[in-house]
Amino acid sequence: MPIYIYSLSILNSQCSTAAAAAAAMESATAAQTAAMPRGVAHLKDELDIVIPTIRNLDFLEMWRPFFQPYHLIIVQDGDPTKTIKVPEGFDYELYNRNDINRILGPKASCISFKDSACRCFGYMVSKKKYIFTIDDDCFVAKDPSGKPINALEQHIKNLLCPSTPFFFNTLYDPFADGADFVRGYPFSLREGVPTAVSHGLWLNIPDYDAPTQLVKPMERNTRFVDAVLTIPKGTLFPMCGMNLAFDRDLIGPAMYFGLMGDGQPIGRYDDMWAGWCIKVICDHLGLGVKTGLPYIFHSKASNPFVNLRKEYKGIFWQEEIIPFFQSVSLPKDCTTVQKCYIELSKMVKEKLSKVDPYFDKLADAMVTWIDAWDELNPTGASAAKVANGKAK
Amino acid sequence: MPIYIYSLSILNSQCSTAAAAAAAMESATAAQTAAMPRGVAHLKDELDIVIPTIRNLDFLEMWRPFFQPYHLIIVQDGDPTKTIKVPEGFDYELYNRNDINRILGPKASCISFKDSACRCFGYMVSKKKYIFTIDDDCFVAKDPSGKPINALEQHIKNLLCPSTPFFFNTLYDPFADGADFVRGYPFSLREGVPTAVSHGLWLNIPDYDAPTQLVKPMERNTRFVDAVLTIPKGTLFPMCGMNLAFDRDLIGPAMYFGLMGDGQPIGRYDDMWAGWCIKVICDHLGLGVKTGLPYIFHSKASNPFVNLRKEYKGIFWQEEIIPFFQSVSLPKDCTTVQKCYIELSKMVKEKLSKVDPYFDKLADAMVTWIDAWDELNPTGASAAKVANGKAK
Repeated sequence: MPIYIYSLSILNSQCSTAAAAAAAMESATAAQTAAMPRGVAHLKDELDIVIPTIRNLDFLEMWRPFFQPYHLIIVQDGDPTKTIKVPEGFDYELYNRNDINRILGPKASCISFKDSACRCFGYMVSKKKYIFTIDDDCFVAKDPSGKPINALEQHIKNLLCPSTPFFFNTLYDPFADGADFVRGYPFSLREGVPTAVSHGLWLNIPDYDAPTQLVKPMERNTRFVDAVLTIPKGTLFPMCGMNLAFDRDLIGPAMYFGLMGDGQPIGRYDDMWAGWCIKVICDHLGLGVKTGLPYIFHSKASNPFVNLRKEYKGIFWQEEIIPFFQSVSLPKDCTTVQKCYIELSKMVKEKLSKVDPYFDKLADAMVTWIDAWDELNPTGASAAKVANGKAK
Repeated sequence: MPIYIYSLSILNSQCSTAAAAAAAMESATAAQTAAMPRGVAHLKDELDIVIPTIRNLDFLEMWRPFFQPYHLIIVQDGDPTKTIKVPEGFDYELYNRNDINRILGPKASCISFKDSACRCFGYMVSKKKYIFTIDDDCFVAKDPSGKPINALEQHIKNLLCPSTPFFFNTLYDPFADGADFVRGYPFSLREGVPTAVSHGLWLNIPDYDAPTQLVKPMERNTRFVDAVLTIPKGTLFPMCGMNLAFDRDLIGPAMYFGLMGDGQPIGRYDDMWAGWCIKVICDHLGLGVKTGLPYIFHSKASNPFVNLRKEYKGIFWQEEIIPFFQSVSLPKDCTTVQKCYIELSKMVKEKLSKVDPYFDKLADAMVTWIDAWDELNPTGASAAKVANGKAK
């Protein structure tokens, strides 16, 4: 059965509204849906799990029931001579710094070293349509009934159901079971737009900056908010890379985690930077970004003193970066993610270089990233493969 | 003790972040906070509960523990000769159509008849700073632990804590217990803005339009989403009047529920209309609108056939009304709610009259409403009273 019918079958069963079901039924009949084998991992052949790490991946044991059917791309940070142990039974490829340098040559300069920003190399080498990325200190969370949460399954639901960025639905995700669009929601907007990004949250250790960590060292997030929502068009958000999924075909080339860590004046802004870039590009291209479920259990607070050193410049800079991104308006002829991203790099150079010379370097790295992406991903290859039912 | 110190004491205990606490501490010392008697109804002398009705108010029995300390303004819709029974022990004033005509004279034309839109008369005659309005088919909901939800208390929390419309916080309300602003949230935006509106939700019968009611007659909302969030600047939402609170001083004159019901071509868009108006004005004036908690239990689905007749024109019209409101840009010299609202009425006349002559009439009624509001509310009276600690 071709892959695209498989995806649409899932969509049919997971997006509960009539409109979404109708769209799915264009390609998948009810009989086909009914015939789908139960328990088969969703999008098994269309999704890679990307994990940046410097240590043995024992955390995968807890995720085994959910992750084992998928292919893992492990990006080893730091010393390439160190051996990273991966639990038995997982299907994976692993890249260390030597591999990255070998594959990208001089373009490897755009991939950060000694920072989890290196994970974006995994997005680039993947040949799948979807990426899920998770940190190695994130474990399986439980819902209020005590049931372990299959984070990946929820991300897939989020990605396969439309987003609604043009008008706010007060009952949150209208495609969730038992929910819909409320009175006063324009019917013309109910079809929604394709979802490019699904941003998941964290129970236990919240994703706070160093100053907040210092002020509230004991604060734990215990609030399970049973909602997924589309971040409205025109609104920026702080995207965390700990528990994140996206559609490579729709937004992959913008999911660059910037220059962080070794040799750079800043860290811990890799995911933020990517989040601001993908949001303005999704807004421009009419794509959706969701946040909320699924939760993971974030086990370990990082050291706030180390964090403060990494991020303190960002705390100043973000005061100028946010207004910059809020004012970004991409030209109409930017019709692909790549074109948008190159245009954005020019704006960064023009407007942010005066904040710090770092942004000049970052703007150049953004161009290098796109060059490297296009080299490894001849245009539309992944999308075409999926449509032909040949995705690995 | 002057009223304003009382409010700030509540703010101090209910807005958990350091910034909010610091703001509160400017006027209220920790000693004062500690001295606050427990169990005293919050804002008892600063909030009116407005209830539109056509029947005896037996539903108040269930709300007695939460509502009895407050003053009620009951707006009787329909036949003014009918007697509305109010359970013993409640402090209330009641207005029927004859009262409205007597008080407003010719300006009474702006108050709807045979439609719950008449409730906005209650907003106008109140002399308090805050309004909570609720429908008479709404009962006390229970949280997931089975505890009855004091909806009014949560609305007061929402109104007394700042809103954050300029940037999305992924852990929702940063002022909630156990929450804060996440990494990447600009510090300059953490002070937030005053909250003008708190929009609560409904368990059991969701607030669906007639077509959705017809398609999903058995759908019930059982999802308790434990979140309050600010609706971002520039984003419109469908505001439901069933369970709603607001700050009269900040936004009251824009909380007009339009011309609905008897003699009008449309119904069931009263709260929607008000929601679109207040949102563009809040965005312009730098005020916040929150949605989410608290839930009420909505007991009775209205008749979808009757609803369809009332709302079908709105289903067409909203396709043009929403783009209109999305494009509204108020001039800088509109520095008060009244000025904004008069300007908006001119835009409605200019841009929406071509959709239907109804909007011409509605634009005129918007002006009449402001005239009537100003007549009953000499500028700043309520705010001044509160500042002097003399609120009734």
